[in-house]
Amino acid sequence: MRQAQHELSVETRGAGLYEITDPVGRWVSGAGMTTGLLTLFCRHTSASLTIQENADPDVQRDLQTFFERLVKEDPALYRHTAEGPDDMPAHIRSALTGVQVAVPVTAGRPALGTWQGIYLFEHRRQAQRRRVMLHLQGE
Amino acid sequence: MRQAQHELSVETRGAGLYEITDPVGRWVSGAGMTTGLLTLFCRHTSASLTIQENADPDVQRDLQTFFERLVKEDPALYRHTAEGPDDMPAHIRSALTGVQVAVPVTAGRPALGTWQGIYLFEHRRQAQRRRVMLHLQGE
Amino acid sequence: MRQAQHELSVETRGAGLYEITDPVGRWVSGAGMTTGLLTLFCRHTSASLTIQENADPDVQRDLQTFFERLVKEDPALYRHTAEGPDDMPAHIRSALTGVQVAVPVTAGRPALGTWQGIYLFEHRRQAQRRRVMLHLQGE
Repeated sequence: MRQAQHELSVETRGAGLYEITDPVGRWVSGAGMTTGLLTLFCRHTSASLTIQENADPDVQRDLQTFFERLVKEDPALYRHTAEGPDDMPAHIRSALTGVQVAVPVTAGRPALGTWQGIYLFEHRRQAQRRRVMLHLQGE
Repeated sequence: MRQAQHELSVETRGAGLYEITDPVGRWVSGAGMTTGLLTLFCRHTSASLTIQENADPDVQRDLQTFFERLVKEDPALYRHTAEGPDDMPAHIRSALTGVQVAVPVTAGRPALGTWQGIYLFEHRRQAQRRRVMLHLQGE
Repeated sequence: MRQAQHELSVETRGAGLYEITDPVGRWVSGAGMTTGLLTLFCRHTSASLTIQENADPDVQRDLQTFFERLVKEDPALYRHTAEGPDDMPAHIRSALTGVQVAVPVTAGRPALGTWQGIYLFEHRRQAQRRRVMLHLQGE
């Protein structure tokens, strides 16, 4: 067994879901392991990772709308407001969706279900450069 | 070190929590590794995985009730409605609870706490056949 | 490749976030692996693990306040009330934030982002002794 690591860079242009299934899959293929475990880790506290349906873009928009309603951008609700009204809600949305996900690798590719895609979930309004660590262990 | 993989099939009959601790533990035992890392991955976007108290069944019912209240089945709230009123809420509940969990393996079994059980959390109303990938690395 | 395991004990004194980044980092350093995967697993159903901003303590307090508002301690909402009014809300808050997180290890330390800290999120009011399993695979 052996391992490989890579840092994926994702440019975001406002809050929303950004699919990264393809670049992740290409990196896994290039690593040349047939069976293993792929771990993705988002190195930020105001963006997260989620696995969602990738067939209908409305699913991603509904998901974002739900989190906007659930975690309101109302400065009266928070102590931490110095970094802007969207910062503390971004931290909470990250805690609710998580910054890490692992996917088994089978036959040289992540064993996602038919409708599953891997997304970076950006919670800030301004453009950001997000770093996602990829770790692969296998053979 | 070596690894093993297996796809567990779980038949669900409506929304709720389905405990899979026993079949998962049996597969881990059969793999014959003393120390390692077990990863479970649910290959669906309208069911998820959660670790919960397995002593009082009321805990599982209260958990389900909470998510029904938090993520309403009201078509007016969503764009993605073509697959039925319970589909978009199912995607959101999956994002909130997550489709992956990893448990260290010690002395040949998952190192769960005394009251912890592993559950598939079904979010659709109709009967489904759910596939959970199990991945084990260890020695 | 090889692996190491350790059980970290965390004493909590009421609900809130308890940072464990330092003891976790020290254990990883002591294990002497340059590259690998660190997995943390909380062996309880009323405490969880989260990765959050560790610069401003207000972030941790706002996070706790959000979960207190989202998951109310109102016994009328739950069937499972025998273990106290804070027990079922604690189970739900654990399900929402998760009991497991994995972090790639690079250059001998967890590859956390600049502002990321690892926290045990205690959801019960009384003092507790929490056990967090650490698992490391690498070389």
